[in-house]
Amino acid sequence: MAVVVVGSVAFDAIRTRYGKVDKVLGGAATYFALAASYFTQVRIVAVVGEDFTSEHEAVFTRRAIDIEGIQHAGGKSFFWSGEYGDNLNEAKTILTHLNVFENFEPKLPRSYLDSEFVFLANIDPVLQANVRRQIGGARLVGGDTMNFWINGKRAELLETLKAVDVLLINDGETRVLAGEPNLPSAAQKVLAMGPKALVVKHGEYGATVFFQHGAFGIGRHPFRAPALPIEQVVDPTGAGDSFAGGFMGYVASQGTLDREVFKRAMFYGGVMGSFAVERFGPERLTQLTRDEIEARFAVFRELTHLE
Amino acid sequence: MAVVVVGSVAFDAIRTRYGKVDKVLGGAATYFALAASYFTQVRIVAVVGEDFTSEHEAVFTRRAIDIEGIQHAGGKSFFWSGEYGDNLNEAKTILTHLNVFENFEPKLPRSYLDSEFVFLANIDPVLQANVRRQIGGARLVGGDTMNFWINGKRAELLETLKAVDVLLINDGETRVLAGEPNLPSAAQKVLAMGPKALVVKHGEYGATVFFQHGAFGIGRHPFRAPALPIEQVVDPTGAGDSFAGGFMGYVASQGTLDREVFKRAMFYGGVMGSFAVERFGPERLTQLTRDEIEARFAVFRELTHLE
Repeated sequence: MAVVVVGSVAFDAIRTRYGKVDKVLGGAATYFALAASYFTQVRIVAVVGEDFTSEHEAVFTRRAIDIEGIQHAGGKSFFWSGEYGDNLNEAKTILTHLNVFENFEPKLPRSYLDSEFVFLANIDPVLQANVRRQIGGARLVGGDTMNFWINGKRAELLETLKAVDVLLINDGETRVLAGEPNLPSAAQKVLAMGPKALVVKHGEYGATVFFQHGAFGIGRHPFRAPALPIEQVVDPTGAGDSFAGGFMGYVASQGTLDREVFKRAMFYGGVMGSFAVERFGPERLTQLTRDEIEARFAVFRELTHLE
Repeated sequence: MAVVVVGSVAFDAIRTRYGKVDKVLGGAATYFALAASYFTQVRIVAVVGEDFTSEHEAVFTRRAIDIEGIQHAGGKSFFWSGEYGDNLNEAKTILTHLNVFENFEPKLPRSYLDSEFVFLANIDPVLQANVRRQIGGARLVGGDTMNFWINGKRAELLETLKAVDVLLINDGETRVLAGEPNLPSAAQKVLAMGPKALVVKHGEYGATVFFQHGAFGIGRHPFRAPALPIEQVVDPTGAGDSFAGGFMGYVASQGTLDREVFKRAMFYGGVMGSFAVERFGPERLTQLTRDEIEARFAVFRELTHLE
């Protein structure tokens, strides 16, 4: 079943201990769409500028991603520049040029409206709510956010969260959103804001999903998936969005939403995140095979499996 | 099979968000011994002062821990006072009075010398090496250390590590010891210093064991065990030592040292750490049953288990 993602398609300049790139395709929707494309049909809603060429378009179409929802505007695409120090979980932003993104008004093409799965990537919660309204009949809505919105547009974000089924954010964001330092307690507070499930991403330590009691008929016991211990994290950019893409893509590919599907989705999320960081930009996500994905899934499983 | 632990038996004053205690029994050897006592025979080597009474002694003897190796000296026992803020992985030390510990010369009673398993808790690496020499025939030697020794007695520590089979330290210590920010790379550097296995404790995120290639005949793939998402971490003191006690105690209780034993030991370590933090001091570790331990083991397994 198809999954629609709305979010940024951008160009990034990135510096890490392994080198630097001056302009690679990036943005949350890009990483999400590529990661999810190995599991299910993906449809993307975004805005790009005149610097987005047919070459960039081909990155999506080669993965059979539907780009009818990519709007083309005059001017330049969203541009982000950042670097990572020893703490790979935190990028230092050097500059952000919103460019065409500043006036982004996401609009779902009519052909997207039968999509049963939606992912609201990290954009203004007002836009997220807008998209959510356009596709009222969705079966499962995933979402992301960040401290910029948690602190700057809290009321709007809380409104959006009421209509999000699965929120995927990191530890720090969970604590800030809940105003509570203990992570499991913070998770309960976030679940009380609306989401039926909260996936907390722990960077190199994996991720934990917490459930509202009885949500999806699967009780409230949390589930934790590991991350691979990776010696060369070449570029952490997009790891979280790739996790979300693997997670939502796998869920959308299954007919049911039971605990076992959620558990496997957590592992596939980790798998796609682990591929993303192996190269600068989304390069690694453009050339995978399903066999490679399954092989790494087996490694993840072995990493924590008790007989 | 018996495990000998050498380390501190102390009194602690602790403040956390859940309250405070002015004087509870503490010290690495105390937490280790209590946790390990649910799996195997434990023998302790430590020094205490005149404030260590028969009441404190009974905490050990009720768990059938052999205390012949506890030396009694004039003066006061080691005293530590600390508090925890929102970051439960890091205590802020308020004061440390070494007292009788300052002149500690660990000496193994003759009756301990047939012990096949040894744990060198976090003390001066010179003393660790001294104990290691006294029990040359041990089958498996575990050890711990901290940044104070890594930075202050590096040469002595490196000498000690040559004779340690399994080192159990946390992320920060691993990075400082290796001088390398990437954890899996840091782990490889630490393994090159001598230990056949390195257990890196990630606090609330669990722990990962890395192996020297071919060590214990089990290849080099790491294994990761979760920690329980706990809403009320009343007092994190001793969690790492309790992990070590569960880990070494379980290993000592088994006849073999294969991958499956190591994996289960990682889980038992997490289980004992999770009990330790439920109350101030080691109280919770004094009154467990093996049934409670097995029930929590099942919860840990379910937390990450894929069919």
